[in-house]
Amino acid sequence: MQALQNKICSEGKVLSAEVLKVDSFLNHQMDPALMQDIGREFAKRFVDEGITKIVTIESSGIAPAIMTGLELGVSVVFARKRKSLTLQNNLYISQVHSFTKQETNDISISKEYLQATDRVLIIDDFLANGQAALGLLDVVKQSGATAVGIGILIEKSFQSGRTLLEQTGVRIESLARVASLEDGTVTFLETVTAGGAQS
Amino acid sequence: MQALQNKICSEGKVLSAEVLKVDSFLNHQMDPALMQDIGREFAKRFVDEGITKIVTIESSGIAPAIMTGLELGVSVVFARKRKSLTLQNNLYISQVHSFTKQETNDISISKEYLQATDRVLIIDDFLANGQAALGLLDVVKQSGATAVGIGILIEKSFQSGRTLLEQTGVRIESLARVASLEDGTVTFLETVTAGGAQS
Repeated sequence: MQALQNKICSEGKVLSAEVLKVDSFLNHQMDPALMQDIGREFAKRFVDEGITKIVTIESSGIAPAIMTGLELGVSVVFARKRKSLTLQNNLYISQVHSFTKQETNDISISKEYLQATDRVLIIDDFLANGQAALGLLDVVKQSGATAVGIGILIEKSFQSGRTLLEQTGVRIESLARVASLEDGTVTFLETVTAGGAQS
Repeated sequence: MQALQNKICSEGKVLSAEVLKVDSFLNHQMDPALMQDIGREFAKRFVDEGITKIVTIESSGIAPAIMTGLELGVSVVFARKRKSLTLQNNLYISQVHSFTKQETNDISISKEYLQATDRVLIIDDFLANGQAALGLLDVVKQSGATAVGIGILIEKSFQSGRTLLEQTGVRIESLARVASLEDGTVTFLETVTAGGAQS
């Protein structure tokens, strides 16, 4: 998606060969018009999948997810993140390890808001090691609902997440695929033509 | 705001005389179309205030704030909530005590995203004891920016927050003002006429 790639190029900060910081438009300050464009793009890509619900994770997934939900006309549920949850009967719970923060969190969704008949689109901001998306897939699976797609804003294609997710067979759409952050420069996987035909 | 009051009446769960749970459309599952209506309502009420930035707090404030930002054409910053932050030079930090959870969190906003020239609209989901809104006001004040308004979705008018906030002199707009939750029933402060003329 051209607009997102442009924003990453103009405002993203490459902190290391593995860390891209996009606090100015996604992870702390948010650009509402860009989030609306992203919602429209996800809706366009997934419109034929019969989606009935969007699932994301707090906090940075919420803005793109709510815009996608608005376009598709479906509700959005955000999974809560907690250090650890005592077993609760009314929650679907999965564990998510963050390699960046070196900590494991429980993520949870109330059983009230996922039904076995739901066709779910998962939205998340980053795909790196894939742990958050796999946790969300696990939660959806526990409910008996069908995960029909995963929509990612920024994929770090040089990390293992994409491959891990592909093994689940669920369709993945990443709006910006970062091939490398070497030498302080963001290189995208697909070369975008002037007309924006690709990616 | 009629649509929000209707939603509270049809889906809100009164857990006690002090607790109203709205997990089905705001605090866990979110209704994107209602969030858009809320964003439009806040935009209408604050359009003449020359707002340059919206500030909210993770996680439930994000959806209504991003929709308001979209309508007003300004960026949104969400304050992060943490158990405690070691002093960091690049953050404005304030402490917020939650009476419900009986815990105190630090909330923070990066100095990069609030300027002394900003005219800020604060958006939050609930107003109860006012501690979150006062914390956000404190953060805005530290930056030298001007807080020109506070937009609240659901105000529990029988608690102390409204009075505390009014003492700051900042304009407050609450879309639904709950007078009482006694006897398991939600009673609003203003009686809404059939035509929706009030509130």
